[in-house]
Amino acid sequence: MPEYRKDPVVKRWVIISTERAKRPHDFQVQPEEVKVAFCPFDYGNEHTTPPEILAFRPADTQPNTPGWWVRVVSNKFPAVDPELPVDRYGHGMYDAMTGFGYHEVIVETPDHESTFALYDYKQAEEVVWAYVTRFRTMAKDERVKYILVFRNHGKEGGASLAHPHSQIIATPVVPKTVQEELDGAKDYYSYKERCVFCDMINQEKIENRRLIEENEHFIAFEPYAARFPFETWVLPKRHSHDFGSITEDEVRSFARIMKDVLHRIYVVLNNPPYNFLIHTAPVFEEGKTYYHWHVEIIPRLTRVAGFEWGSGFYINPVPPEDAARYLTENYQEALEKQSK
Amino acid sequence: MPEYRKDPVVKRWVIISTERAKRPHDFQVQPEEVKVAFCPFDYGNEHTTPPEILAFRPADTQPNTPGWWVRVVSNKFPAVDPELPVDRYGHGMYDAMTGFGYHEVIVETPDHESTFALYDYKQAEEVVWAYVTRFRTMAKDERVKYILVFRNHGKEGGASLAHPHSQIIATPVVPKTVQEELDGAKDYYSYKERCVFCDMINQEKIENRRLIEENEHFIAFEPYAARFPFETWVLPKRHSHDFGSITEDEVRSFARIMKDVLHRIYVVLNNPPYNFLIHTAPVFEEGKTYYHWHVEIIPRLTRVAGFEWGSGFYINPVPPEDAARYLTENYQEALEKQSK
Repeated sequence: MPEYRKDPVVKRWVIISTERAKRPHDFQVQPEEVKVAFCPFDYGNEHTTPPEILAFRPADTQPNTPGWWVRVVSNKFPAVDPELPVDRYGHGMYDAMTGFGYHEVIVETPDHESTFALYDYKQAEEVVWAYVTRFRTMAKDERVKYILVFRNHGKEGGASLAHPHSQIIATPVVPKTVQEELDGAKDYYSYKERCVFCDMINQEKIENRRLIEENEHFIAFEPYAARFPFETWVLPKRHSHDFGSITEDEVRSFARIMKDVLHRIYVVLNNPPYNFLIHTAPVFEEGKTYYHWHVEIIPRLTRVAGFEWGSGFYINPVPPEDAARYLTENYQEALEKQSK
Repeated sequence: MPEYRKDPVVKRWVIISTERAKRPHDFQVQPEEVKVAFCPFDYGNEHTTPPEILAFRPADTQPNTPGWWVRVVSNKFPAVDPELPVDRYGHGMYDAMTGFGYHEVIVETPDHESTFALYDYKQAEEVVWAYVTRFRTMAKDERVKYILVFRNHGKEGGASLAHPHSQIIATPVVPKTVQEELDGAKDYYSYKERCVFCDMINQEKIENRRLIEENEHFIAFEPYAARFPFETWVLPKRHSHDFGSITEDEVRSFARIMKDVLHRIYVVLNNPPYNFLIHTAPVFEEGKTYYHWHVEIIPRLTRVAGFEWGSGFYINPVPPEDAARYLTENYQEALEKQSK
C-alpha cells in the first residue's frame, strides 16, 4: 500500500510506493568504462592542475610534485571566482550578484582506481582533515556565507573525472535546500524546544528499523521520508550546528563511519554512482541551538529526476526500512560469500 | 564573469557560469535506440492497458479498441491509489498519510514514432483537451488537493515507454516546489500588490532578450534565473491561478505555443530528453490574486543533478539570453537549411 511520508525538517511529502517495490539487484548498475589516457590527478601530472592550495605530503617533497597523499587545488573550470568583489545589483525587477566564491577540488588519493569506500581508515581520515582544514580557512573570509563540501561519484553522479575527488564551493549566499532545513529546524525548535535532528537520532535508535551504522560519535540511518532508494544520512551524536567545530576524536569517528557506510553501498549495490553532501549551518549565522550538521548520501539509481526537480515530489520505490535491511543483511551475505 | 541570479518567485539563487559557457552543439544528444517488440500504447494493444477512462474516438468505435486519437488510462504501476481513504497518522515524531491519489497516463497519439514537437496544431489541441478534461474531473474530488500534469520525454527524461504520452498525478498534498512558489508569489504580492508572474511577463516583453515565442494568449521565455540550459517557461498572458479555468480560445493558443516551443527545442538541440510540468494553484485553495499558472520545460542536457538535488544550488553554464538567441537564430538557420 503506498504511503505519503513527511520529512520532519523541511516538511516535504514523499510517496513511498510499495507497488513499485524493488530489491537491490533491480538496480543493475552497468560497470562504467571511463578509460582515459591522461589523468591530471595522477602522480607526475601535478603541473597540469592549478597550483596546490593544500597538500599532505612528506616534508622533503616539493609542492606540485609527487609524494602527496591528499592534494587540494582550485577547480580548473570554477563555477565562481575568489577574485571578484561581492556586489549586489538590480536588473529591472530581478536581483543579481557578482560571482564571488571559492571552488576547489580535493584529490583524495594518488590511487586512480580507488574510491572512498575502499580507503583504509587512515586515508579516509586524511581526506576529512583536508575538508576540515579548507572549511576552517574559508570560514575566515568575511565574504563567505556558506561552504558546501560534496562528492560526486560515477558518471551518473556528475563526476567528470574518474580519479577519486571531492569538491568545496564557498558562496556569499545560502543554498536554498539548506535555508529550508534551517527554517524547518527553527520552526520545530520554536514548537518543541528541541533539535529536530537530535529527536530523529533518538527515534531511530529506539525504533531500530532504519539504522545502518553507529560508532562512538556518529550514527547513520535511512531517513523516514527518504526521497531516493538507499538515501542515507550520517549525523554526529553530539548536537552541533557547525561542521567546522568537529573535534579531533570526531574526525576519526566521522571518517570511519563514512567509509563503513559507503562500503556497504559499494558492496550491496555494486559500486553505484552517488553524491554526498555535508549540510552545515551558514558561516557567521545563527543556528546554534536548532540546527545539526549532517551528511546526505544519495545513490543515483533511479531516473525519475526531472519530474521530481520540477515538482519537489519524490516517489521512492524502496521503503527505507527495506533499504536498511538490504544494507545490513545483504552486506553480511556478500562479505561471507567473498570470504569463502 | 560568473553571476548569481535570484529567482523572483522562490528566491532561489543560481550561478550563471559563463566560464563554462556552452553552445547548442556541445549538448550532443545520442539518438536513443529504444526499440521494443511490443508497445501497449499502439493500436490493437488496447486490451493490455487498464481500461480507458477517457478517449477521443469516432462515435462508431468501441472503447478499448483502435480508432482513438487520444486515450487516457490508469498508470499500470500507479504511485498512488484512488481506492484508498485519506487517513493521516503519526509514527513517533513522524507524520504519514495513506497513499490516496490518481495516477493516469495520457496516450497522446496512436503514432508510436511521433512526439509533441511534431504534432500538427489540431493534435496538440486534442492532447491539451485531454489534460483539461481529466483535470476538471479530478478537481471535483474533494479529497484531491493538487493535480500535476507532466510529460517525460526520452530515456534521460524518465520515460519508460517511448510511445508519446503524458501523465497526471492527483494528490491530497501540495508538492513542495509548488508550495514554495505560492509562498513566494504571496510575499511578492503583499509587498507590491501585483502578481510576480505578470511583472515577469512585462519585463520580458520590454527587455526582449529572453523571449522565445508569443501568440494571442501565451508567451514563452527563458527565465532570468534559469536553473538549467534551455529551461523555458510558458505563461498565459491573462492572469489566472487555475489551469482548469482555461478558455476554449486559450486551449487553442496554448496547444500552438507548446508545439512551437517544443519544436524549437527539438530542432536546435536534436530531440533532447526533457520534462515539462504544469504548475497551477492547489484545488479549493487561495492563490487567485497572486498566483499564475504556467508550464516549466526542462531539457535534460546536463548531468550535475545530484549536487543540485542536495543543495538546491544550480550552476547553469548557458546564460538564458544565449539560450534564447540559439532558440531563435539557430532555429531559423536550421529551418532554412532543411528547406534547401
